Amino acid sequence: MSSTKKPRIAVVLSGCGVFDGAEIHESVLTLLALDRAGCLVTCFAPDVPQLHVVDHGTGDVVPGTARNVRTESARIARGAVADVADARIEDFDAVVLPGGFGAAKNLCTFAVDGSACTVEAGTAALLGAALDARTPIAVACIAPAVLAAVLRDRGESAELTIGTDDETGAALEAMGVVHVPCSVERAVVDEERRVISTPAYMLAASIGEAAASIDAMVASLMQMLGQPAGGR
Amino acid sequence: MSSTKKPRIAVVLSGCGVFDGAEIHESVLTLLALDRAGCLVTCFAPDVPQLHVVDHGTGDVVPGTARNVRTESARIARGAVADVADARIEDFDAVVLPGGFGAAKNLCTFAVDGSACTVEAGTAALLGAALDARTPIAVACIAPAVLAAVLRDRGESAELTIGTDDETGAALEAMGVVHVPCSVERAVVDEERRVISTPAYMLAASIGEAAASIDAMVASLMQMLGQPAGGR
Repeated sequence: MSSTKKPRIAVVLSGCGVFDGAEIHESVLTLLALDRAGCLVTCFAPDVPQLHVVDHGTGDVVPGTARNVRTESARIARGAVADVADARIEDFDAVVLPGGFGAAKNLCTFAVDGSACTVEAGTAALLGAALDARTPIAVACIAPAVLAAVLRDRGESAELTIGTDDETGAALEAMGVVHVPCSVERAVVDEERRVISTPAYMLAASIGEAAASIDAMVASLMQMLGQPAGGR
Repeated sequence: MSSTKKPRIAVVLSGCGVFDGAEIHESVLTLLALDRAGCLVTCFAPDVPQLHVVDHGTGDVVPGTARNVRTESARIARGAVADVADARIEDFDAVVLPGGFGAAKNLCTFAVDGSACTVEAGTAALLGAALDARTPIAVACIAPAVLAAVLRDRGESAELTIGTDDETGAALEAMGVVHVPCSVERAVVDEERRVISTPAYMLAASIGEAAASIDAMVASLMQMLGQPAGGR
């Protein structure tokens, strides 16, 4: 680390598990890349019930069960995570959202409603405040859908990627953003809107590819924040 | 990767979350390091109820709830994991156990019974078969307790580390193994028993330190398997 002040990063999680929460690999790889870049990380999640509990062995929704997004997110954080409704954008230099179906099920309703989705109130408020303050936002995998919905509700746009999936890209464009196809080891940077996105497991065929994607996102974010390139 | 045959690695998980299952960071970092080393990984877990469900936000045991170790482990694997009772040692070149309280609660009873602990039957059978076959075993964090109990039941010993915690080290030594203090970024290698251990979150103060620990474990394992040093 240089003597530069450490960037303060808000990471918004959406549960714990790719099919009903935050994608675990993406979340852990995000925390690792931010740590290696010398950041101070605070994890947040909405204090709401998960849309589903999915048996990750079978892929089936488990009826009659309930889990809380914030409580499950604490598994990834190894301890309490703050309520995203309490996040103050002035305390942070950037906001980062890993992916997983939780982003599309718990942070917004994209998994159910597509481009007509609504965004969870606390998450919407934090992302809106970040856009107001021109605080950089980085999103991985399907999390660009959350940001696209916030931009749509503001009548704004940005360049975002979810990789190369035409159908999902079209659903994003229906919310008014410009979908930029992107390979897994790269990130799309919208310098004007100060927004970064990367495909991660929208394209990754291995955890190594997911790590390359997340590393590209965090490297672009550090560049946007004017941080010196970090050593590994 | 060289043209060498890819090492086939059995990773035994113990749930999903540091306080009642497999430590998520260690598990993900293990999968990443093995992928980067060019390994073929198969995840296993016992098909048994977790000892506890712990609210990772508060640290409290949640009464009246039950989760299955194999089902929750699938969250880390991003899909079905095999029953450890079905693992055949002849199909693998090494067995790896990440840590987390799940290793001490679900793979054995060390968290409750200390050095008098018993080992879950499928896990005990796999580790015993690995010792019989001289197939390397790598264990992180508190997972050395599982291996120590298997060795104790065979009347055998090995050099193992859980870092620098004297009390836990003494509990391991009470099972007949030699505890070797070790710093977080290193691994202890018992060449004779073909056993590798690393402290990970027994000592790590950050995810970057945990990654260094896991990377050291996997590098030592690849060396033991005669694999060329992998690029990152």
